[in-house]
Amino acid sequence: MTATTTRSIDWKRFSDAIAGIEIIRDATQVAKLSKDYYTYSPLLVEQLSDKVGDLVVRPTSEAEVLKVAKACVQQRIPLTVRGAGTGNYGQCIPLQGGVILDLTKMQAVKWIQPGIACVEPGVKLAALDKQARETGWEIRMAPSTYRTATIGGFIGGGSGGIGSITYGQLRDRGNLLAVRVVTMEDEPRVIELRGDDVQKVNHAYGTNGIITELEIPLAPAYPWAELIVVFDDFMTTATFGQALGDADGIIKKLVTICADPIPGYFAALRSAIPPGSHVALVMVAEQSLEPFKAMVKEWSGSICYEKSAQAAKKGTMLLEYTWNHTTLHARTVDPNLTYLQTLFPYDPELKLLEHMYQHFGDELMMHLEFIRVAGCVLPAALQLVRYSTPDRLHEIIRYHEEKGAFIANPHTYILEDGGRKTVDPVQLAFKEAMDPYGLLNPGKMKAWEMRDRS
Amino acid sequence: MTATTTRSIDWKRFSDAIAGIEIIRDATQVAKLSKDYYTYSPLLVEQLSDKVGDLVVRPTSEAEVLKVAKACVQQRIPLTVRGAGTGNYGQCIPLQGGVILDLTKMQAVKWIQPGIACVEPGVKLAALDKQARETGWEIRMAPSTYRTATIGGFIGGGSGGIGSITYGQLRDRGNLLAVRVVTMEDEPRVIELRGDDVQKVNHAYGTNGIITELEIPLAPAYPWAELIVVFDDFMTTATFGQALGDADGIIKKLVTICADPIPGYFAALRSAIPPGSHVALVMVAEQSLEPFKAMVKEWSGSICYEKSAQAAKKGTMLLEYTWNHTTLHARTVDPNLTYLQTLFPYDPELKLLEHMYQHFGDELMMHLEFIRVAGCVLPAALQLVRYSTPDRLHEIIRYHEEKGAFIANPHTYILEDGGRKTVDPVQLAFKEAMDPYGLLNPGKMKAWEMRDRS
Repeated sequence: MTATTTRSIDWKRFSDAIAGIEIIRDATQVAKLSKDYYTYSPLLVEQLSDKVGDLVVRPTSEAEVLKVAKACVQQRIPLTVRGAGTGNYGQCIPLQGGVILDLTKMQAVKWIQPGIACVEPGVKLAALDKQARETGWEIRMAPSTYRTATIGGFIGGGSGGIGSITYGQLRDRGNLLAVRVVTMEDEPRVIELRGDDVQKVNHAYGTNGIITELEIPLAPAYPWAELIVVFDDFMTTATFGQALGDADGIIKKLVTICADPIPGYFAALRSAIPPGSHVALVMVAEQSLEPFKAMVKEWSGSICYEKSAQAAKKGTMLLEYTWNHTTLHARTVDPNLTYLQTLFPYDPELKLLEHMYQHFGDELMMHLEFIRVAGCVLPAALQLVRYSTPDRLHEIIRYHEEKGAFIANPHTYILEDGGRKTVDPVQLAFKEAMDPYGLLNPGKMKAWEMRDRS
Repeated sequence: MTATTTRSIDWKRFSDAIAGIEIIRDATQVAKLSKDYYTYSPLLVEQLSDKVGDLVVRPTSEAEVLKVAKACVQQRIPLTVRGAGTGNYGQCIPLQGGVILDLTKMQAVKWIQPGIACVEPGVKLAALDKQARETGWEIRMAPSTYRTATIGGFIGGGSGGIGSITYGQLRDRGNLLAVRVVTMEDEPRVIELRGDDVQKVNHAYGTNGIITELEIPLAPAYPWAELIVVFDDFMTTATFGQALGDADGIIKKLVTICADPIPGYFAALRSAIPPGSHVALVMVAEQSLEPFKAMVKEWSGSICYEKSAQAAKKGTMLLEYTWNHTTLHARTVDPNLTYLQTLFPYDPELKLLEHMYQHFGDELMMHLEFIRVAGCVLPAALQLVRYSTPDRLHEIIRYHEEKGAFIANPHTYILEDGGRKTVDPVQLAFKEAMDPYGLLNPGKMKAWEMRDRS
């Protein structure tokens, strides 16, 4: 460990050094801002529920971030960066106490040009999207926490979401154009990363630099109709999802498949969806509604819910029943549920998916999000799991991996144990240079911890 | 044959029946309007060079088309529909004489809404695109004959083109929203086809209805930069093309790969491209140039030609060196060249492509157009062939088919022997209802001819 334990910190000296910057010391508030949605995972609850920062700092500018960084480096204080805390894997939990750097006050949209926006990390996705849409553009992708999540948190800890059926994942070249980061060196600096260099901090959980500005690509804004389609059986629903994903002439933003009994957890939609249904929840450009409906007909589906883009501006947003929100709604009804994150290999026949659906029966409820991965459309599954024991959960994960499905484990807060699986030498090298004392989100990057031990 | 031989036709009666509508009788003009670009194929030249219509009619409205249709039906006169005649497979050659219906005067753009345009068939693609771009939209795809081809001809005889890397092929659901067609019944009618019904006439070579209006989807308009990238060897160039096609975060409109010595045929580009180069010709959204260039760097390519979207408005258009224009430029230098149209199976490693590249050596020059087919990016090859004999050409085709490559044979004017391969029962049934006397583009639809003989 290079990080000092927080017991020896002179907090008076720290707060003097950052005079003028908001500090939160109220224990309830600090405790609240030490959490994210890791409660999705019973394993993470066990590991993280006692973790709490010493205080929260809320800078309003890059200059203030530089001051905070310097004050932390001087006393080797751990610094854990957070946005809105809507993640599910404990990405922003202060494992070793110290300062929680809450960036939600840095919410300036610096500029929007056709196809590109330059923003501060704390801007909420919905707010940015609204401004972008006024210029005919919109954000390419968003998590189901669209209303509350920040762009910085999404880039730092997310992987993709609504929009990934067209634009792939956040890690894909072109989905993040540039970032400015503040370092944790003795004299903290601002570094600009462009081109492939952005990968040094993309999805690094804030472990190797504090993102203070981002340039992100925008998508042309379409009027998105929201629909729910009901099918007789699960595999028809799933192959419909695959075919819709593969339909290059139909413009879509979301293709979510929920096996029965999942729709029963959606309180606000329950009156629209017949009991016992397998459903597809989709966002389709209004210009593509006619061919979309022809496709529904070919698959013998029936549309049980339809909102025009105009109507969708009010009330329930369909996207709030997809991605991690599917789990959220299910857990509201049954807190014993947890989930998996699975990427199935490319196979238009969905054979491995069908096997898993049948093999696990009632224990796993199939929830698919179709996304583009390296140019092809695949089902990413966020299966709901009826939780029993840690061993059984690991057994389920192992079974998937042995059969060739990729698990992005949502039951770990370790960067490399989640979706990435391998140590990223580029991110590690960048941390060595930018955060020589290992103060940033300590404990998250396994490569760093292993390096310390060697 | 149900069509009357043209010898017994009372042409005076015909022209009286369509009084007021332009008729061209000048032999040179009629001969010219009896051709398309079938000269690409030495086999088609042999079969088609003596085919000529009796006269050309140029209606200016749907009402006039109805009159012409009726006048033809009355005397059982064959009617061959044509746009600008930029096709390569003899789609619009009057095999049995009769009337050539030239629709190039029907060039109204009826309306443009966000994402959809309603047009007459004779509107030129470049003209439509220009109008659409004024509203922030553009046509989704175009052939390399963009400047001269008509939308009706493209839908009637084309398959895809520049833009297919994003939107797939014309046959894909959503790429044609509606058509109005005039029938060849005793009392010709106008029929509107929407949804999947458009497939009844889509790519049917004008054999089962005269398209008088089309609703086509538009794409959001991007500023397209034009670039040529040089690589050391062919397979690096090809895998770069595949990877660019698969890069979901990079917005592109064209990914063309030309093996050496093809770029040597491009007179206007010769000064830009180093001799002996394998090249990628691409159109990339300016917003994606930075990640695109990062990709070029990873592949050790070097950019030898770059035009901003603004600069690309003037002078040489890169797209005019791609798709069938690649063949055109090569044949200008060496008229003994012909070509193939090949679809390789999905394989990110491009193994079959590599085999063909090595197997045929100098006899085939590899030219690839990456396109989306059913959701995945594949190389469509329009290989240049050093022509020797019909037998050898068929042997080359057979070799490809045996190894698992799909050949859309460009050396036949028969609908089903080209790209589609199988009799389309929907199109045949529609012809039976709409053109009971078999007058429309006779001789093109094998299913119809076989039916006559049975």
